[in-house]
Amino acid sequence: MTVNAHNELPIGVFDSGVGGLTVLDAIRQSLPNEHLVYLGDTARLPYGTKSPASIERYATQAAAGLFEQGIKLLVVACNTASAVALDALREQMAPMPVIGVVEPGATAAVAAHAGGRHLVLATEATVRLGAYRQAGEALDPAAEVREAACEMLVALAEEGWSSGDIAAAIVRRYLDESNGFKPHTIILGCTHFPLLRDTIADVAGSGVLLVDSASTTAAVVRTTLEGNDMRRRADGSGTLRLFATDGATRFARVGGRFLGRTLTYQDIELVDL
Amino acid sequence: MTVNAHNELPIGVFDSGVGGLTVLDAIRQSLPNEHLVYLGDTARLPYGTKSPASIERYATQAAAGLFEQGIKLLVVACNTASAVALDALREQMAPMPVIGVVEPGATAAVAAHAGGRHLVLATEATVRLGAYRQAGEALDPAAEVREAACEMLVALAEEGWSSGDIAAAIVRRYLDESNGFKPHTIILGCTHFPLLRDTIADVAGSGVLLVDSASTTAAVVRTTLEGNDMRRRADGSGTLRLFATDGATRFARVGGRFLGRTLTYQDIELVDL
Repeated sequence: MTVNAHNELPIGVFDSGVGGLTVLDAIRQSLPNEHLVYLGDTARLPYGTKSPASIERYATQAAAGLFEQGIKLLVVACNTASAVALDALREQMAPMPVIGVVEPGATAAVAAHAGGRHLVLATEATVRLGAYRQAGEALDPAAEVREAACEMLVALAEEGWSSGDIAAAIVRRYLDESNGFKPHTIILGCTHFPLLRDTIADVAGSGVLLVDSASTTAAVVRTTLEGNDMRRRADGSGTLRLFATDGATRFARVGGRFLGRTLTYQDIELVDL
Repeated sequence: MTVNAHNELPIGVFDSGVGGLTVLDAIRQSLPNEHLVYLGDTARLPYGTKSPASIERYATQAAAGLFEQGIKLLVVACNTASAVALDALREQMAPMPVIGVVEPGATAAVAAHAGGRHLVLATEATVRLGAYRQAGEALDPAAEVREAACEMLVALAEEGWSSGDIAAAIVRRYLDESNGFKPHTIILGCTHFPLLRDTIADVAGSGVLLVDSASTTAAVVRTTLEGNDMRRRADGSGTLRLFATDGATRFARVGGRFLGRTLTYQDIELVDL
């Protein structure tokens, strides 16, 4: 029985910071035998308020950094980079499969409610590009997709204020600003927002389904590996390496919240891009 | 009557983003005949959550960019860069005078209340360095200086939510976290925070004096120019050029709030560092 060396390579997961750890966690639960490497470009976060040209440059540099580590598949676990730079990344990494989070998120929403109204909470850059609206309306022409830029939710998640009166008031204000658009689903269009899931659900009310990209992206990763016969042979549990471009201490503190376990700065390897 | 060419050069003002425009505005009001160039390093903001090594690298690159433009004095209008990188910048730019915002802010606070209690609201990086505490206690050994990291206030100012219930609740929470420390002054230790001045004043109550670095930094710039005979001959009003490293549209929108006038993206020149 031979081991396919290429299939032994890890899956690379990349985000501007720690938010993509929610996607990493879903992949790890779905594919516990796969090795994983995660790169958070913390030296240049946030991407969500930067220009498309800068976002594309940062994303291609991060992808090149993971390519040098040796990976078999790239997950762009950052909504902003997925919205802005997915085509550029696919061209750069070909023939390696590159999976973003926007299309899996849009797919999950329209599958949950055909012809429905979908409200996307996202960063300024993601909203400006209209990526979710385009993906959702391409998948379901009867769907109505509206996008709201919610930068304060990023700050809330990073500060660890994910519940309580302040978080609820901020979420309510963003939902109120969508002026009577009564969504069937709310798409958590930024990897920070799953941390605020309970608060958003409370404010939105019980009739609204919350959709995040993490689990659907993990499902796309799994079917892509299987379809290309790229699964790692299940001879032991997968390993995890965490890389960041800056601030190991802060990465460990904030990232632990996203990964749901305690991290120390020694768990994080610093790299230059 | 000859014109001193060196004195005709502009004053350079540098910040990680748009917040330093509050300092620029104070300098412009105090010295209306001086030419000014402003550089906001928006491609890499915020500095407040980055590591000291990254902050120093970014700050020295920004200073070099302004040096190439030709300036006669450098103002580091970013509390984080002032706290982390002022010594490095002075060494780099010598013999040009380099003025930070931390010492003028601390000076104003201890002058206002000798032997008093001072609460500094600042970014995570500024607090980690303890720069205000050191400066305040060096100027007034009887002073008691406490520093609070308030990242949510940065997001509030950028989002334009500087008044109202949400802003008040967030400010109250940060002040409550200082556990019974009853300050005589509150130092606005981040250039974003003057936008929140009214809200902070309301929450703190009438017995507390708010101190920001903008006007005291402008006074230090003035005395430094005068002491070195570097004032521009008053033969017309000073000009203003605005540079940013990314996102002219966003810079114009958010920066207009800080400068108190309407800016368009055409007012902003993009540069690479």
